[in-house]
Amino acid sequence: MEAAGNDLLLRALLREPTPRRPVWLMRQAGRYLPEYREARARAGSFMALCTNPQLACEVTLQPIERYPLDAAILFSDILTIPHAMRLGLEFEAGEGPRFAHPVRTAADIARLPLPDPGTDLRYVIDAVALIRRELHGRVPLIGFAGSPWTVATYMVEGGGSKLFPAIKRMIYAAPRELHRLLELLARATILYLNAQIGAGAQAVMLFDTWGGALTPAHYEEFSLPYMAQILDGLTRHADGRVVPRIVFTKGGGAWLDKLLAIGCDAAGVDWTTDLADARARVGDRLALQGNLDPAALHAPPEVLDAEVRRVLESFGRGPGHVFNLGHGITPDVDPQSVARLIEAVRRYRLD
Amino acid sequence: MEAAGNDLLLRALLREPTPRRPVWLMRQAGRYLPEYREARARAGSFMALCTNPQLACEVTLQPIERYPLDAAILFSDILTIPHAMRLGLEFEAGEGPRFAHPVRTAADIARLPLPDPGTDLRYVIDAVALIRRELHGRVPLIGFAGSPWTVATYMVEGGGSKLFPAIKRMIYAAPRELHRLLELLARATILYLNAQIGAGAQAVMLFDTWGGALTPAHYEEFSLPYMAQILDGLTRHADGRVVPRIVFTKGGGAWLDKLLAIGCDAAGVDWTTDLADARARVGDRLALQGNLDPAALHAPPEVLDAEVRRVLESFGRGPGHVFNLGHGITPDVDPQSVARLIEAVRRYRLD
Repeated sequence: MEAAGNDLLLRALLREPTPRRPVWLMRQAGRYLPEYREARARAGSFMALCTNPQLACEVTLQPIERYPLDAAILFSDILTIPHAMRLGLEFEAGEGPRFAHPVRTAADIARLPLPDPGTDLRYVIDAVALIRRELHGRVPLIGFAGSPWTVATYMVEGGGSKLFPAIKRMIYAAPRELHRLLELLARATILYLNAQIGAGAQAVMLFDTWGGALTPAHYEEFSLPYMAQILDGLTRHADGRVVPRIVFTKGGGAWLDKLLAIGCDAAGVDWTTDLADARARVGDRLALQGNLDPAALHAPPEVLDAEVRRVLESFGRGPGHVFNLGHGITPDVDPQSVARLIEAVRRYRLD
Repeated sequence: MEAAGNDLLLRALLREPTPRRPVWLMRQAGRYLPEYREARARAGSFMALCTNPQLACEVTLQPIERYPLDAAILFSDILTIPHAMRLGLEFEAGEGPRFAHPVRTAADIARLPLPDPGTDLRYVIDAVALIRRELHGRVPLIGFAGSPWTVATYMVEGGGSKLFPAIKRMIYAAPRELHRLLELLARATILYLNAQIGAGAQAVMLFDTWGGALTPAHYEEFSLPYMAQILDGLTRHADGRVVPRIVFTKGGGAWLDKLLAIGCDAAGVDWTTDLADARARVGDRLALQGNLDPAALHAPPEVLDAEVRRVLESFGRGPGHVFNLGHGITPDVDPQSVARLIEAVRRYRLD
């Protein structure tokens, strides 16, 4: 048993020594949990779940009640900001997000409002405050937002995409307009994350889910500087503690060194990069978060144990590792496998 | 004008000096060309186009007639081998490939036949011979196959996939069965590519389109060794010349050094890796093929010129670069942009 007030996550993100590696899992509050599916059915829709602070709080806490995790992460979505910009967000069953009004032209961009988190995104901020209260200090609460580039892909494409034809066209044919959109999203995200921190988020994460679809030069032009701008604008301390920042560019394992100069404390690492390589490249300048292949949750128990151990050992000794998956848990995972994974991380002692 | 018998591609793939960089484009025979769409409509279906040597030849030559390209690539599909294994391949409109009989169990795998290229894949071999004849030596003809891992993803998932849940489950829960499948595919691919070489293919390429979805350790266990096995089994000379081999693992830019020991002459590089970095890692041991972002074909003409130049310059001086895209041309590309791209490559002289 850890003492009340488990702060392993916050310490590991700042590369302070911890008696064991903290563990949380991307999308730990999600469809693989029967209690989540029940709450989702009660809410009626995904956005109804997100926009109701009571329900968002309930769902955020579900994995914390079930498992000895070391962090809670706000249950929300990376598209709350464009939703607040009134682009008509809908989640069609099995289809992913769709915007009724995609953003394509300079006029579309000029028309976009800067959402006020205190009103337009009040439901998120209320959820953060409520979750903090209900957590009773058991584990830290992570707030989050999408990176401007990643959020912009959905706004411009009008939904999810494989090749990003519309926004890539903007990169080549209308880069100034795209920069204007990204600039607005960065400003909106600073306000949004600072409101989350003000309401009680103790760490924040930027999800740059589609940064890896860019060329290295475009990553440095269209994604990285806007994440840097956000980090530069964020409240650094709350409740007398540093608020650690995590940046996760999926598919960006080869570019980890580019994160060294943008003011984050930790980098998320997906399953396609070896943690030993990642660490060799960032040295002691960043903590690392990751990176078990989420499909390993389908392995037989002993194989899962071995895979967890392989990830822990690939990071090596010393502080600065937060165990996580390389992307979110998929809905087809058996909740018992998640218990086994967490137990395997908690059992491990090498440092 | 080049002399009859443009062999720039073959020389560049072997890192021999060439007066300029050769250029061809993945999926250069494809839906962006009106003459392709016309032939496709005449054939009635994608597979009807593939399985008719006359039509496959016609379509292969379309971009060669239209543009001063330095290579032709056989018009075919990476799923011809599982098609010959009678898994019931269909291409639904806008949906991509579907197998009526996915391969899931040890019994499914044990039941798979080893296709004989001389009979089961005769249509491909006849197409190769016909194309070589119709090319009259203008440019070299590239033959190709999918990598065993990549082909297996379609066979096991039953079609295209984003997260590869079924085959990833096999990796963790039934690795021996998966190895048996990959072994069979490697054997089939050796026969298949040797038959293509026998019929006139002057270079061969392995498309490892989904190798980048693996962890580094799994790439070394489930994709790389089977590509090595194939290369080891291939005819090395034809018509008194070396038959160069290209391996392209999309999303595998960070692993290029792993290709140094498997017997390929050139590595395909996607748009997420900088060619200068790639070259720094493979030195003078591999030629490189790539890697313009295909979306650059939507750029205004001057921007496209600049992007082409950036790719050419990122490779630097010296031999061993074949200009290409980082993945296939998309159907929405204007054929005039392709002309402009090729012209920009041909104009460039730095070496």
